[in-house]
Amino acid sequence: MKLRQVGEDRLLERLLPTLTIHQGVIAAAGDDVAVVEPARGRDLLLLKTDCVVEDVHFDSTAAPDSIGWKAMMRPLSDFAAVSGVPQFALTTLIVSKETRTGWVEKVYRGLNRAAARFHVSVVGGETSSTRGPVVISVSVAGSVERRRWVSRSGGRPGDRLFVTGRLGGSRKGKHLRFVPRIEESRWLTSRFPIHAMIDLSDGLGADLPRLARASHAGFEVEKSHLPCSRGASLNDVISDGEDYELLFAISPRQSTGLQRAWERKFPKVPLTDIGRLVPQSPIRNRQLKGGYVHFQ
Amino acid sequence: MKLRQVGEDRLLERLLPTLTIHQGVIAAAGDDVAVVEPARGRDLLLLKTDCVVEDVHFDSTAAPDSIGWKAMMRPLSDFAAVSGVPQFALTTLIVSKETRTGWVEKVYRGLNRAAARFHVSVVGGETSSTRGPVVISVSVAGSVERRRWVSRSGGRPGDRLFVTGRLGGSRKGKHLRFVPRIEESRWLTSRFPIHAMIDLSDGLGADLPRLARASHAGFEVEKSHLPCSRGASLNDVISDGEDYELLFAISPRQSTGLQRAWERKFPKVPLTDIGRLVPQSPIRNRQLKGGYVHFQ
Repeated sequence: MKLRQVGEDRLLERLLPTLTIHQGVIAAAGDDVAVVEPARGRDLLLLKTDCVVEDVHFDSTAAPDSIGWKAMMRPLSDFAAVSGVPQFALTTLIVSKETRTGWVEKVYRGLNRAAARFHVSVVGGETSSTRGPVVISVSVAGSVERRRWVSRSGGRPGDRLFVTGRLGGSRKGKHLRFVPRIEESRWLTSRFPIHAMIDLSDGLGADLPRLARASHAGFEVEKSHLPCSRGASLNDVISDGEDYELLFAISPRQSTGLQRAWERKFPKVPLTDIGRLVPQSPIRNRQLKGGYVHFQ
Repeated sequence: MKLRQVGEDRLLERLLPTLTIHQGVIAAAGDDVAVVEPARGRDLLLLKTDCVVEDVHFDSTAAPDSIGWKAMMRPLSDFAAVSGVPQFALTTLIVSKETRTGWVEKVYRGLNRAAARFHVSVVGGETSSTRGPVVISVSVAGSVERRRWVSRSGGRPGDRLFVTGRLGGSRKGKHLRFVPRIEESRWLTSRFPIHAMIDLSDGLGADLPRLARASHAGFEVEKSHLPCSRGASLNDVISDGEDYELLFAISPRQSTGLQRAWERKFPKVPLTDIGRLVPQSPIRNRQLKGGYVHFQ
């Protein structure tokens, strides 16, 4: 059946009761505004929106549930970057009237499965029609304890730089099924003072300079240390993007203890010391500005 | 200049520093996730997303600042419906690479002007490209005191039904420049026990049955009492939609006092008693199901 034969109200009626409703949701889909319990005590409120567009972020031949999965996981990866806990999501699905309802239902299944993976409640859904490519926009609200919030800007010269997982080649498939490093990020800030952190969505070559610039620092990377995905070249590692791994800065004093504790906690996830932050120099700055990574 | 010649990062750099940053915003555009102060004390957190699509919600010839205005005001109207205070907004703008940056800047100006009208901070912005029609999605977070939150479902048989402003004919222009009834809604719940409320976005003929159904009630409307916009027919009043006025239910005991106080507070905004909620009957129910308003 086509979407135009069903109508938005009836489609949402079919889709939304299947969504998991978690604690803290007072009124959700179906009312004008989602009403939820605020974060505990004096935690900070976190807000993020992100969208995926057909032919930009996914191929029209991709499995619809993996498209929904990616649309939800992208903003959740930003929560990992700040060590936040995502709690509530609002979804917007813009599709053609000719789209099959089965396809839309599978997209929602992927959205819902991804949200459930991190106990996120989908508290609002909207569909609208377009003559153009499919757009899925997801907004997420959550919270973080004040002392555990990590920004990009707290890095200091001398800090060691660590990367989780392996980089490069994500577009061959990983980008549609990745799991944001929320668990790892929450563990990190429960045990160690993390100075600065970012999730690698645009590639190390773009995101490392962003973290360094925000921290008013330069950086040096040991290219032989970079954790490459199987089959990925050094260029892939730097430029591919969509890794959704974490890059973070921590004081060198903490780095040995961190690596030992990490291996016990996450034996299957590599954690790699790729280099360090250094004092900012005018020359390095110029190199960063052009978007090039400074490799030793 | 075209968007593809500028690039998203540079465009957002140009646009975002112009946005008003209000109290309570700790980190906003430019970091991974917006970080804001949560609502005071134990207020409820409110979340809403809404989008406008070219050729569905606006004509491509419409003034770009009025398109931005409408995109922001639509979700804010839903805050009026629940008597909430909107505080933070995230915007997503999906346009063609061929779009002129001047057009995009004017859309942002409209978004920003609308947000500033209600002291809302735009804490995140994203642009993406499409080959299809323009899409603007806006997500808003805010809060409401527990005792002042109004849903659609608290109406009781016997309640009087009131409508603010005038209905019908909005698509001739009002839909691009309307001001959501947030001030009026906040005043109402500071003075009167409002049983149920909704904003009229799909037309009285669709939204009144929604409020009645949620309140497990039927309704009777005096069609001669309906507040018509100039030039609007009875059919326009019922079916046009996009009025963005409030419809609410209040006990008959309160209605005389309400009307007197309203006229003093909002002398320029009509408030009209259009009818009442009645006990639900099987016959009325069937009529509602078909989407027809039951007029006496």
